[in-house]
Amino acid sequence: MSELDTLIGLLAKLPGLGPRSARRAALHLIKRRESIMEPLAAALRNAAAAVRPCSICGNLDTVEPCAICRDPRRETNAVCVVEDLADLWALERTAAFRGRYHVLGGTLSALDGVGPEDLNIGRLIARLAPGMELILALNATVDGQTTAHYIADRAAATGATVSRLAQGVPIGGELDYLDEGTLTAALKARRAL
Amino acid sequence: MSELDTLIGLLAKLPGLGPRSARRAALHLIKRRESIMEPLAAALRNAAAAVRPCSICGNLDTVEPCAICRDPRRETNAVCVVEDLADLWALERTAAFRGRYHVLGGTLSALDGVGPEDLNIGRLIARLAPGMELILALNATVDGQTTAHYIADRAAATGATVSRLAQGVPIGGELDYLDEGTLTAALKARRAL
Repeated sequence: MSELDTLIGLLAKLPGLGPRSARRAALHLIKRRESIMEPLAAALRNAAAAVRPCSICGNLDTVEPCAICRDPRRETNAVCVVEDLADLWALERTAAFRGRYHVLGGTLSALDGVGPEDLNIGRLIARLAPGMELILALNATVDGQTTAHYIADRAAATGATVSRLAQGVPIGGELDYLDEGTLTAALKARRAL
Repeated sequence: MSELDTLIGLLAKLPGLGPRSARRAALHLIKRRESIMEPLAAALRNAAAAVRPCSICGNLDTVEPCAICRDPRRETNAVCVVEDLADLWALERTAAFRGRYHVLGGTLSALDGVGPEDLNIGRLIARLAPGMELILALNATVDGQTTAHYIADRAAATGATVSRLAQGVPIGGELDYLDEGTLTAALKARRAL
């Protein structure tokens, strides 16, 4: 059963699946060979081959620049900074923001040894110009807020105005777990730093 | 982002994953392209291509007959009947049974229109002979017990002794959710019908 064991071992590494649910998932897949298992193998291969980070914003997409950066209907003078792609997806689901994004790929963290050079910050500062708005949509955690302050400081020299999401994001909460209504409200009530 | 959306849609079909956890899983995969995503695609392809039901017992394996049916160290005179492969795996984890299995692929169900001809029962009866023991390890549900009685009736003519798992399996419970200790105790205290 080594092929099955390999499959179960890999499925168990997915967030939300433990050893028992990985076995259930493997069995579910084996029983639906044509309808799910083979399409999933192909989807994984296709996504692994096609999806790349956007050189402008760090979003993942199959086109370069990404669909958001190349969309002419989106405002170019507003850039929303997020920690992670999941946060970008969460904001896009609200449909409340029509500007561009910038994905940092993490937050500053003294504990984990993550410095500014480890994040996608240099290219963010280079994108900013007078008259633009920088919206800091970082998690309401200590590291998220430290990163927000660091970026606000660096952005001050570019002439862009800097805002952050309104109070409404619960302390200690993470964007990806919030409902769309709260995120929309927080985005609409954003205030200048 | 269609490749990513396809991937997320397929992941969301796995038991235990909803739309949100499927997005998290997809992101997790994309970030671990070499270590998990590509190996998982290969494991799915390999398992889909290699894993087939055993012609003797219905277990899934890459060899024919399956590793359990071909293992000379396992008793040939004890056959344990299970509803589903997950139940076989649950019993194997206890290491309390050293005979062979027979996987029915479901239970009789008047409500769902599942009759004896829809299950792997004919080949089970053909395996039985005088002096053999048939252990009914079916779920303690109405359909499971109906199926157990039906099989016990058919097996009576073969000369095999028929037993079932001891009381200890909770009423309404399913084998795959039980702990190994309860399953081991139930297997050890099995009694003749």
